[in-house]
Amino acid sequence: MYSFLELAQQFETKFDVRHFPKQPASLYDAAQYILAIGGKRVRPVCVLMGNELFGEINKDAWQVATAIELFHNFSLIHDDIMDKAPLRRGVPTVHTKFGEATALLAGDVMFAQAYDYLTHIDLSYVQKIIKLFNTTSKEVCEGQQIDMDFEQMQNVSSDEYIHMITLKTSVLLAASLQLGAILGGAGERNQQQLYAFGKNLGIAFQIQDDYLDAFGDPDKFGKQIGGDILANKKTFLLLHAKEVANDAQKKEIDTLLELNAADKVQKMLSIYKACKVDEWAKELKEKYYKAALNNLEDVAVLSARKKPLHDLAVYLMERES
Amino acid sequence: MYSFLELAQQFETKFDVRHFPKQPASLYDAAQYILAIGGKRVRPVCVLMGNELFGEINKDAWQVATAIELFHNFSLIHDDIMDKAPLRRGVPTVHTKFGEATALLAGDVMFAQAYDYLTHIDLSYVQKIIKLFNTTSKEVCEGQQIDMDFEQMQNVSSDEYIHMITLKTSVLLAASLQLGAILGGAGERNQQQLYAFGKNLGIAFQIQDDYLDAFGDPDKFGKQIGGDILANKKTFLLLHAKEVANDAQKKEIDTLLELNAADKVQKMLSIYKACKVDEWAKELKEKYYKAALNNLEDVAVLSARKKPLHDLAVYLMERES
Repeated sequence: MYSFLELAQQFETKFDVRHFPKQPASLYDAAQYILAIGGKRVRPVCVLMGNELFGEINKDAWQVATAIELFHNFSLIHDDIMDKAPLRRGVPTVHTKFGEATALLAGDVMFAQAYDYLTHIDLSYVQKIIKLFNTTSKEVCEGQQIDMDFEQMQNVSSDEYIHMITLKTSVLLAASLQLGAILGGAGERNQQQLYAFGKNLGIAFQIQDDYLDAFGDPDKFGKQIGGDILANKKTFLLLHAKEVANDAQKKEIDTLLELNAADKVQKMLSIYKACKVDEWAKELKEKYYKAALNNLEDVAVLSARKKPLHDLAVYLMERES
Repeated sequence: MYSFLELAQQFETKFDVRHFPKQPASLYDAAQYILAIGGKRVRPVCVLMGNELFGEINKDAWQVATAIELFHNFSLIHDDIMDKAPLRRGVPTVHTKFGEATALLAGDVMFAQAYDYLTHIDLSYVQKIIKLFNTTSKEVCEGQQIDMDFEQMQNVSSDEYIHMITLKTSVLLAASLQLGAILGGAGERNQQQLYAFGKNLGIAFQIQDDYLDAFGDPDKFGKQIGGDILANKKTFLLLHAKEVANDAQKKEIDTLLELNAADKVQKMLSIYKACKVDEWAKELKEKYYKAALNNLEDVAVLSARKKPLHDLAVYLMERES
């Protein structure tokens, strides 16, 4: 069995090819561009790991892993257009480099190309695989829409936020694992446990993301601490702070959100700490992390086979950047 | 056997349902909105007609017809964003009504939903159907990209334009017919003839479109005559005029394209007529129309079965709006 990093390397080697025709270069170079930027390839590796949990990695799992990574990049291209993001992983986003219209189309062809890989798998799995892929695709779009809706709303509860983040990021992790499991011949119950593992892990991962942005170690965290606070991003931390703050704190939060004071980050962090948002976030993360581990525990295969997935969960949860 | 109009009515009745979940309404209402605007439903009916050419319309053909119409509307939503079009069929475009970000996502979920319908068909056809659907999807995107590239180019030949229009509009018509034929159990050769029929008919249709915009009867043509000229659109007519005009005419064309003179349409039409662009366009249309009819002729089924498709071709070619 392989570790996450070993599979990520193997995937990278196989994935590092041109996935599109040469012409029209104005379209396909834009599509290929984002794939070359790289990434952790967590989702496709989850397909492979979900597959290996039940036996040797089969050739269809590589096809589906490729489809998942293409889908993920399609959604990144379109999200970046919607969010008007200038940079991704330190380089210009597709629409910044190639224009919005081409970026939109590059996303579209990438989505179609993902389906192309899915049609190459064993016929007996095609319908089940494409169905889960479709459902997940639509959920990811729903998550992005709800996220945009939140930006226009005054009050969002942390429960609503969890629902949004589940759709926007967790279901793809969960589905990747399940797709691998399906191809590994897993039974329905094992598939569902693995899906739940991915879903809970994804939520815990996002809480960790929000936490690190506010409370991470500046020397280890790759980005500027407090970036979410500066951007008024509705994170787990902000939403919970608004739920538990007293009237004076609430007023201060609203003032901080309206103005861009020089000490905005510092002041918001003080409120977070006064409201014990940091402790709450840690506990919430633990809750989902433990639920994920329990799901993994409940998958009916030998414990030894679960080690790589267990290690992955630990790695994702203990990261400091 | 049914006529185009009968099938269009039957399709409309079946298609007139909600294709998406209720929530999030902010996303799915936008997607449903464009479907309710209506349209001629030419492409889905071509699936049904391609299917009926080989026997009774089977239930899978309805699924594929629905997928094709969803795909077509997905591409309309995204094209309208790219073209910054305020109106479609006289009503606000999706992005005008719901904002660009939501329109982009509404297109994406519609594309995914199209695949959902494709997975519901008989397993023995799934791979072949989805493969052709994928190829066609990518070609439509390529066509749109090449069309946008043309806007930035000084010189485009009419051959390049035909290539673009083939990808942007004809292949979808062609594939719709072939998809129906596949589900009808047609042999490879019949499938290819039908595909060629749709492709040639699509090109003839587009030439007719460009022709009517310039030379149509104002009383019968639904839109303003000369709309393409006012918008400096690179049509068959303009590209050919630039190819055959003498130096003085070329200079006048360039001046007309640069300035927006009050008599721009009238002056451009004079050049078109002096260059016999109208006659050329009629001949070119006839060439593709005849090629299409020959393709239909060559499909090895009883002539009587071809009548509805033949009537459709006549109807599309003799329209005046």
